[in-house]
Amino acid sequence: MSDSLDLLNERLKAFAQERDWEQFHSPKNLSMALIAEAAELVEHFQWLSEEQSYQLDADKHEEVAMEMADILIFLVRCAERLDINLVEAAQRKIAINEARYPADRVRGDARRANEYDKEDSR
Amino acid sequence: MSDSLDLLNERLKAFAQERDWEQFHSPKNLSMALIAEAAELVEHFQWLSEEQSYQLDADKHEEVAMEMADILIFLVRCAERLDINLVEAAQRKIAINEARYPADRVRGDARRANEYDKEDSR
Amino acid sequence: MSDSLDLLNERLKAFAQERDWEQFHSPKNLSMALIAEAAELVEHFQWLSEEQSYQLDADKHEEVAMEMADILIFLVRCAERLDINLVEAAQRKIAINEARYPADRVRGDARRANEYDKEDSR
Amino acid sequence: MSDSLDLLNERLKAFAQERDWEQFHSPKNLSMALIAEAAELVEHFQWLSEEQSYQLDADKHEEVAMEMADILIFLVRCAERLDINLVEAAQRKIAINEARYPADRVRGDARRANEYDKEDSR
Repeated sequence: MSDSLDLLNERLKAFAQERDWEQFHSPKNLSMALIAEAAELVEHFQWLSEEQSYQLDADKHEEVAMEMADILIFLVRCAERLDINLVEAAQRKIAINEARYPADRVRGDARRANEYDKEDSR
Repeated sequence: MSDSLDLLNERLKAFAQERDWEQFHSPKNLSMALIAEAAELVEHFQWLSEEQSYQLDADKHEEVAMEMADILIFLVRCAERLDINLVEAAQRKIAINEARYPADRVRGDARRANEYDKEDSR
Repeated sequence: MSDSLDLLNERLKAFAQERDWEQFHSPKNLSMALIAEAAELVEHFQWLSEEQSYQLDADKHEEVAMEMADILIFLVRCAERLDINLVEAAQRKIAINEARYPADRVRGDARRANEYDKEDSR
Repeated sequence: MSDSLDLLNERLKAFAQERDWEQFHSPKNLSMALIAEAAELVEHFQWLSEEQSYQLDADKHEEVAMEMADILIFLVRCAERLDINLVEAAQRKIAINEARYPADRVRGDARRANEYDKEDSR
């Protein structure tokens, strides 16, 4: 019945409350913890080629999975503090991206949104 | 039946494939995109006090929700490329944290894991 | 005679060349290494209050100094690869900021540049 | 006589003081501003190949120079708040790296420090 992210959220909230850690979990602080975990993910890939970044050995793959877990954990915590529905927000953002980048126009081209916008305004 | 993250994953994969963007979506590149979005979240909070970071006006709250959506989007994409089950990984990481930080020992104390470890080894 | 950043740059370039590491030092990779170090700096402060972030004990102060050293090291390396004069660029950016934020207008107010710009266009 | 980073530091301190912005410039907040700028640098490179990251057109090169300027600006500000001598710290860190990575042992190999350490302890 319950969604997996809801279950995760409940478990994480209980974890913080049992340790009296909610006092440290301001959105400001959680955004810092989240980016620190994102950087640990980046660190695994920084000297690898793109090809190598797909081919991680088992130990590295597990370390990467745990970094991604940490990112999700802090993201869920931060969303809870600000009463944001992550999945709903993501579905809404994808709809925006679908309108912004019509498949016919951007196929095979990774230039960023603002660069398309700049072109439009020329 | 399907979980919300699975649905998100399918929609994002289709989005990338329709645009022929999977060629850009190496784990290395996606980790960069993810951290760039994490930084946009941080940027919203950098000059706010912790208290202010809870009290966002409606416009700012929506902007923050969209940054968090972007983080989730790239996290889901990166997990897909590496065949990582995000929710399973997060549940596993929480179990590790529960063992690592017994509530009785760390209540109200936000020192980091490695600092506890250092103490242990003294 | 030589400036301290020039000396640093020369020493770092020699360090990379002696180890045949310049092959890994693309601007892309160096930007990743730089942000990973920036995150280690953030990590020191994430659970501290702003006040506490000024009052580091000697060990922590030294660790923070080493993180900042790492950031400078990768910044200098990245500038070298792209033939950018860091000090000249910073002086130029400060001049832009001085014009953008007249002291009379922004005194005591930390809102971000783009928010002023938004106001201007209303 | 004065070093370029000292001059930069003085100009930035005056800039903050004239705007009564030092109150926002805690080490915690400055670390957030710094990583946000580092992410803007990363963002320029995230969809480029390593080769492309060397070959920026003039506009992009200038944008990248300005992001790197912002990183240096916040790094200098943060060092000032914590009374850290950046150049001295960097020279000290390089000496540590020179001892840690003997050229003979690591030539052409970009594995990270902690991986060498792990090998040592096996």
